[in-house]
Amino acid sequence: MANHPIRIAVDAMGGDHAPQEIVSGAVQGARAYGVEVLLVGPPDIIEAELQKHDTQGIRYQIVPASEVIEMGESPSVGLRKKKDASIIVTAKCVKRGDAQGMVAAGSTGAAMASALLYVGRIEGVDRPAIGVLLPSISSPCLLIDAGANADCTPEMLSQFAVMGNIYMQNVRNVKKPRVGLLNIGEEQSKGNAFAHTAFQLLEKDPRFHFIGNVEGKELFMDGADVAVTDGFTGNVALKSAEGVMKMFGATLKTELKRSMKTKLGYLLAEPALKATSKKVDPEEVGGSLLFGIKGVCVISHGSSKARGIKNAIRVAKEAVVADVLGKITNQIREGIDIHEHASEIF
Amino acid sequence: MANHPIRIAVDAMGGDHAPQEIVSGAVQGARAYGVEVLLVGPPDIIEAELQKHDTQGIRYQIVPASEVIEMGESPSVGLRKKKDASIIVTAKCVKRGDAQGMVAAGSTGAAMASALLYVGRIEGVDRPAIGVLLPSISSPCLLIDAGANADCTPEMLSQFAVMGNIYMQNVRNVKKPRVGLLNIGEEQSKGNAFAHTAFQLLEKDPRFHFIGNVEGKELFMDGADVAVTDGFTGNVALKSAEGVMKMFGATLKTELKRSMKTKLGYLLAEPALKATSKKVDPEEVGGSLLFGIKGVCVISHGSSKARGIKNAIRVAKEAVVADVLGKITNQIREGIDIHEHASEIF
Repeated sequence: MANHPIRIAVDAMGGDHAPQEIVSGAVQGARAYGVEVLLVGPPDIIEAELQKHDTQGIRYQIVPASEVIEMGESPSVGLRKKKDASIIVTAKCVKRGDAQGMVAAGSTGAAMASALLYVGRIEGVDRPAIGVLLPSISSPCLLIDAGANADCTPEMLSQFAVMGNIYMQNVRNVKKPRVGLLNIGEEQSKGNAFAHTAFQLLEKDPRFHFIGNVEGKELFMDGADVAVTDGFTGNVALKSAEGVMKMFGATLKTELKRSMKTKLGYLLAEPALKATSKKVDPEEVGGSLLFGIKGVCVISHGSSKARGIKNAIRVAKEAVVADVLGKITNQIREGIDIHEHASEIF
Repeated sequence: MANHPIRIAVDAMGGDHAPQEIVSGAVQGARAYGVEVLLVGPPDIIEAELQKHDTQGIRYQIVPASEVIEMGESPSVGLRKKKDASIIVTAKCVKRGDAQGMVAAGSTGAAMASALLYVGRIEGVDRPAIGVLLPSISSPCLLIDAGANADCTPEMLSQFAVMGNIYMQNVRNVKKPRVGLLNIGEEQSKGNAFAHTAFQLLEKDPRFHFIGNVEGKELFMDGADVAVTDGFTGNVALKSAEGVMKMFGATLKTELKRSMKTKLGYLLAEPALKATSKKVDPEEVGGSLLFGIKGVCVISHGSSKARGIKNAIRVAKEAVVADVLGKITNQIREGIDIHEHASEIF
């Protein structure tokens, strides 16, 4: 392993805090997790950032890319016009096999499109999907699809379940992941027409352990290890949870400032508040995984700072080490038969 | 007004804490808001509960009902079998005009079905919808539909917007409510096929001020005054938010107990923590409103205690005072023309 470390390509120019925080996080990640990082972007800019850090003993390469797709820019227009965009070059590093995984902050749309166009889909996967590990009272739940596909077929949900199941088994060491369908009640009769059809399909799929419907609150209360849903519902669940946590935090801050007594209480309780924030912090989780493409792809929040990027590198490394890609490829290949069989039933 | 107070029928037998907490909350609500409460259930049981309270100076009646639909019971089976169920008799009080509004804890399904079957729909309303006021950093947002209709048409969302708009204007005194479509991005192009069609319909409707798409996090960050969506998405958003708040609270509690210092901090900061919990507490909000039926119907959480019922009575009274029902009836009637016109466009 010493001579062939795991290589992760990092789009050094993506996100609100590029290149400073991205390069800083990549250096930290390379050191902490012993991976080689491929920093993608204009070499002079990256060199200048690297000067600020101690790079002794870490492995890195600089991969030139002259253009950047901005946060507000339309991904489709950006990708068409800017063929030398850092996100495209990052994806191409994985395509060529120069890196086994990629980390990208910034526009989720541009990262997904680059991964899909330049790394490519695993054969048999209908549509790649975003998986996000949600904070929980005990072990985290993988929500998949958290936003890649606004419209899904029930068959797509079966594949999401397969991919999420493999991830939780091999990376999170959950022996027999409980796979649930995100729905508005526990009984099979609950939900919309789409959920009813998906339930029937998931129930008959032998590739994972389906536990039935799970409600939104169970995502955070250890009700399942994998929760499958369409990308519209998944994204609404994710963003609603984000919003209410922000609101809760902001309200608590205001209330704590109301009196000297509560201010003092805050000072004493600060370690607990910080520990709690850390546990529910998306940066700590380290990003979303795009499942179903021929490489490991971790998409970080556009607002990611160094810590977020460092954690994203950890997440990418874990997926590479566990060979999530190989295992998904095999099971999807086997699954093609099951699928054909399933389509006869329904 | 002194001789003709507002009358609210309360299902005294609904929910986990019936009849004790329901009767207690009804007595408190009657006193606090000057309404007359109709307590529905077995008279002997209600009488016994009333003995525990000071009822001097409050107005109440006991309306006999001999049966109860239990929390776990199928609403459709229960309603068919138990014609003298307290929830049915409660709805009939509104139907007959003995009460202008009803409050029910317990099974949401049974309450909705009773309201629909025995109070009836407003003419022109396709489907009644549940509206929930969400806690927010500043003014609350009304989420509608929060779970009544798992499958919706875009036209139904227009009606939800009309009803929510009237409520926020007349009860919450928002001059020009910002009506948004719950979606997974702000741009018009975002979302699934259903959201695209709904956007086009809402945009052209002159009956409210449509501000475009709002994301899940904006529900709690003052991004809209009314957020319309189908009942599946709305319920997932609501339950996810509930779950993450529970998780956050439980995690914080555990962390605060870790050291003497943080324990002391907790004691000092307690008023702020309690004030924050109160602000985000569904019981404080007082329940969900079922819009689109010919009477005011407030559905409280099955776990409601006296405070929740008291607040639900306030919510019901406010809706009666503001004549939300009359205003919705009028605007839906006018809207039938607009609707026909709209269906020519699309």
